[in-house]
Amino acid sequence: MVTAPKTPITYRDAGVDIDRKTAAMKTVAALAKTTHGPSVLTGIGSFGALFRPDFGGLREPVLVSSTDGVGTKLMVARRMGRYDTVGADLVNHCIDDILVMGATPLFFLDYIAAGRLTEDLLAGLLGGFARACREEGVALVGGETAEMPGLYAEGDFDLAGFIVGVVDRHLILSSERVRTGDVLVGLTSSGLHTNGYSLAQRIFFEREGLSPADTLPGTGTTIGDALLAVHRSYLAPLRGLLADPGLRAMAHITGGGFTENIPRVLPGGLDAVIDRESWTPPPLFRELMHRGPVERDEMDRTFNMGIGMVLVVDPAEVARILAQLVASGETPVVIGRVESGTRSVRYTGRGS
Amino acid sequence: MVTAPKTPITYRDAGVDIDRKTAAMKTVAALAKTTHGPSVLTGIGSFGALFRPDFGGLREPVLVSSTDGVGTKLMVARRMGRYDTVGADLVNHCIDDILVMGATPLFFLDYIAAGRLTEDLLAGLLGGFARACREEGVALVGGETAEMPGLYAEGDFDLAGFIVGVVDRHLILSSERVRTGDVLVGLTSSGLHTNGYSLAQRIFFEREGLSPADTLPGTGTTIGDALLAVHRSYLAPLRGLLADPGLRAMAHITGGGFTENIPRVLPGGLDAVIDRESWTPPPLFRELMHRGPVERDEMDRTFNMGIGMVLVVDPAEVARILAQLVASGETPVVIGRVESGTRSVRYTGRGS
Repeated sequence: MVTAPKTPITYRDAGVDIDRKTAAMKTVAALAKTTHGPSVLTGIGSFGALFRPDFGGLREPVLVSSTDGVGTKLMVARRMGRYDTVGADLVNHCIDDILVMGATPLFFLDYIAAGRLTEDLLAGLLGGFARACREEGVALVGGETAEMPGLYAEGDFDLAGFIVGVVDRHLILSSERVRTGDVLVGLTSSGLHTNGYSLAQRIFFEREGLSPADTLPGTGTTIGDALLAVHRSYLAPLRGLLADPGLRAMAHITGGGFTENIPRVLPGGLDAVIDRESWTPPPLFRELMHRGPVERDEMDRTFNMGIGMVLVVDPAEVARILAQLVASGETPVVIGRVESGTRSVRYTGRGS
Repeated sequence: MVTAPKTPITYRDAGVDIDRKTAAMKTVAALAKTTHGPSVLTGIGSFGALFRPDFGGLREPVLVSSTDGVGTKLMVARRMGRYDTVGADLVNHCIDDILVMGATPLFFLDYIAAGRLTEDLLAGLLGGFARACREEGVALVGGETAEMPGLYAEGDFDLAGFIVGVVDRHLILSSERVRTGDVLVGLTSSGLHTNGYSLAQRIFFEREGLSPADTLPGTGTTIGDALLAVHRSYLAPLRGLLADPGLRAMAHITGGGFTENIPRVLPGGLDAVIDRESWTPPPLFRELMHRGPVERDEMDRTFNMGIGMVLVVDPAEVARILAQLVASGETPVVIGRVESGTRSVRYTGRGS
């Protein structure tokens, strides 16, 4: 049939190995299954994932969805050869993004792309996805793994995550409920979460010539471990507050820091006024600021400064809500107030 | 405040420009809005996207989700500097993946990552997403754009898409309904859709030294245009058949070709037997096979061979269903039959 004298070429010759991918999919399916409850009607392997939602008590269910990546935190993971944390980063980031709308998560899907999907890489990433999904009660229902030699360099990879959750329409949290005098309550982050990693790596590894194995001053941990600390999910401490009328809105502090994220839940005519002296940013942030050096304003629009979630709370209910948060194991801090303004963030105090 | 003598560093210095990203988000929001119906409660800009599904007539709504990438078709787009088609590829690929479960789409989210998000690139990609979503009646409710200098080379980018649709539980299509004697009906593809591009580029551009501007023999089109032809959505011609008891199952022919995809809708104990002489693969596939050269078996497990969707049809209903497909503008072809076997694909005929 073939008349040309050339050696036949196969898809594998072009760098793509369908057999290996099929084998990897079996691993995915087994891991994903550990996250499935009765709502999941099929496993991975069909063309789409089937999820039968139980909207039992809800008056008017609204689906809340979000997608995100891990950003250049991936490069830290690669540098350290540790692939078991970034999957959890992504799941938790996605959970927090819909949580601030008042939603609880239903299911998650992941996208993994790499120059070459080694077993090490896949097992680490998928293990992280599955572990976080299990811990948070989210079904890992599907995913795509793409091997793209030529687009990604050997060893490079990227991830995206997609989440769908649900909220009863009358319980949607948004800027509409926020009033002058509302109190801003911060919940601590576990580190940089998933933002500011381009700048952090530039400072630590290029400007300062440090290595991930070096100790982060003022801590018993290495810079690498501090940078890879998993993005927290705030679902557990906040689930019980989602229907609480004292909770007006929430902002997930992601890329853009307080400066960009808090205005997303401010109505026109109001500002968030944050007292920089109301909490002390953890050593990681202080090191970045002083070593950069990075101006404090730039810090505040790049990093979360130790506060990964900001709650906007009715001043009459703040004591009760703080007590409830403490009872859930949080160490909440009142970091500011809502005042009249221009839908932006103003800072007071010098900060450390 | 800063005592170090070094010049302060900013996030922008590290290659990330929040202002530019914020501006880009306004463009996204405006484009996305053109795809929104009354179910979309908010636009992009909140942390999550709100979609109030209307499950009116459904007895037991089941959410069907899928995620996918475009693969190395992106590299063809990059080579040609044409960014307005791959977004549509992704939307349509996702639609087809849930369509074969019997589902119609509700909403879509995209993930775009690049070394540098130029206006050209963003406008092209987002234009493609929005156009396809509008055409297919899917709401583009959210997305993430990540600028990751260092992970992606200048000019490189990657995309992932995520879709959620719905099907009434008793109308879910799967292997369970498939019986011996069922007829396999193929619907034509528009080209390679989104699979086999690593091999196709290797053959045309490396082995043969051709350029995208060269004419594809036997056609009036260039190799580049033939390769970038947009992945078809089969929603319009198939929507009216989803509740038709004559339609037993469907397989979307993606990576792995007939060989890998048709077994996904075969129950144990049955084979799909496909007659290679029942249709003629379009010139693009014949060129790849002869120039590679690529063995026909390898072609069939890599490319769609001109058939992007395979319907498994009750033999008693096949005439009526073929007529209905023709009335929708399709040129359906009977390509084979379901017989007893081992859940694999067998081929008969020499093929061209």
